[in-house]
Amino acid sequence: MTVAIIGVGLIGGSMALALKDSGFAQTVIGVEASEAHAQKAIERKLVDEMANLEEAVVESDAIIIAVPVDAIEVVLPQVLDLVTNQIVLEAGSTKSKIIELVKNHPRRRQFVATHPMWGTEYSGPEAAVHGAFKNKAVVICNKEESSAEALSFAVDFYKMLGMHIVFMDATNHDVHAAYVSHVSHITSFALANTVLEKEREESAIFELASAGFESTVRLAKSNPAMWVPIFKQNRENVLDVLNEHISQLRKFKACLEKENYVYLDELIQNANKIRRIIK
Amino acid sequence: MTVAIIGVGLIGGSMALALKDSGFAQTVIGVEASEAHAQKAIERKLVDEMANLEEAVVESDAIIIAVPVDAIEVVLPQVLDLVTNQIVLEAGSTKSKIIELVKNHPRRRQFVATHPMWGTEYSGPEAAVHGAFKNKAVVICNKEESSAEALSFAVDFYKMLGMHIVFMDATNHDVHAAYVSHVSHITSFALANTVLEKEREESAIFELASAGFESTVRLAKSNPAMWVPIFKQNRENVLDVLNEHISQLRKFKACLEKENYVYLDELIQNANKIRRIIK
Repeated sequence: MTVAIIGVGLIGGSMALALKDSGFAQTVIGVEASEAHAQKAIERKLVDEMANLEEAVVESDAIIIAVPVDAIEVVLPQVLDLVTNQIVLEAGSTKSKIIELVKNHPRRRQFVATHPMWGTEYSGPEAAVHGAFKNKAVVICNKEESSAEALSFAVDFYKMLGMHIVFMDATNHDVHAAYVSHVSHITSFALANTVLEKEREESAIFELASAGFESTVRLAKSNPAMWVPIFKQNRENVLDVLNEHISQLRKFKACLEKENYVYLDELIQNANKIRRIIK
Repeated sequence: MTVAIIGVGLIGGSMALALKDSGFAQTVIGVEASEAHAQKAIERKLVDEMANLEEAVVESDAIIIAVPVDAIEVVLPQVLDLVTNQIVLEAGSTKSKIIELVKNHPRRRQFVATHPMWGTEYSGPEAAVHGAFKNKAVVICNKEESSAEALSFAVDFYKMLGMHIVFMDATNHDVHAAYVSHVSHITSFALANTVLEKEREESAIFELASAGFESTVRLAKSNPAMWVPIFKQNRENVLDVLNEHISQLRKFKACLEKENYVYLDELIQNANKIRRIIK
């Protein structure tokens, strides 16, 4: 099988590596908007060859789109216009807007909307790794809108990556993703800005940065070119969760202001219940 | 040398292991308020023997206090009352209140106030590990209030643990610790509570929990018995930083509300500067 990967960065590049490592594809063709990324992808042997979008679609059995969600809005309709009977997947972090955009496309059923819940704070072809995605969840949205054949391809592909598959409608996905991914990033960006602001006065502050701080602030290294479009597309859910998060923070603030350490203890005990979930 | 460790949990237990691993101490005596912890410490061979506070102090050349900061307020004056010429260290996460409490004690100069910036979200003797502390910072506060002999012991001890030593006055320490440790924990507790609240309605939410979420929320497993006293003792600094953090979060909120994605991009680019600090 020949697979085209549009966007050979962290996600697309890691998928390309797995396609070849597993023998799932014999040939992987890369498509890249960035010349520097294209060169890097060839240099790192992430793909067998680079091609332009039209050539890649014509030569492939399946096309996987792994670009930022604003670029998916442009590229996905183009790809669906170009395909004959190929299967198309995209791997964006938001789902409703993307699905809505192509819902009336004549080749909608050849397309499967997916969100593999794996990533790191790094981006670009340099960040692609072997063995990514393993044991993480992938969400497949609105499966009834895809053909049996397309769906079966998506399931086989993500099983090959070692992922467990969760089916969900796009609306629920976007709410859940706001909770377990998007707002974590805002928290981390805001914490980084809080400390960087202070650093202007006191350069020594980072001498003390502990492992706890590093873990909380790690996501603040994430790329704005990926994240601004996610926040834009999932704006309402992200705002809802951000408001809830701020009101949870205000409870801690109120406890300290009122010196109510009994309630502070309760808030922390409640937070400890996350142990059930995060081993 | 014989060293007494008061509080054989994550910190004290890991120090006890290193004291024996390195040969720095020939004998380590543990003191524990909790019978269960005492048994566990013996079972795991963290210490050579358990003793009560008086016996342990009399038999030791140095005493290290590694209990929650509210317990330090009780135990440190007791220990200073008991010692003759022994050296006393404590390893609490706040410094001003503790130092203030014993500033007029006749044996103040035998005492060194320290904060080794290492920990995990786990606690108790089960959580103690070999090789802890390595390559992390330890803060030694108000060194001019300790004798040369006591200071030299503290430096040798923390070098043995593989830590790099930062000298700082207690007031600065407490500000910096609020920034790079204490408020990270509040952020993480609040994020856990935000998501756990939502889970009441939608049990499937954690199926999607990604590595990013896990990293941000990991600290929410931390023990309230340790953290409530830290927030209490460092209340004013923690409130200041928490207010700043909430105002940084509000900037993200305002960007989304006003759909100002140019400024949102700038906020994230600024947060990316954390890459200079956190590799």
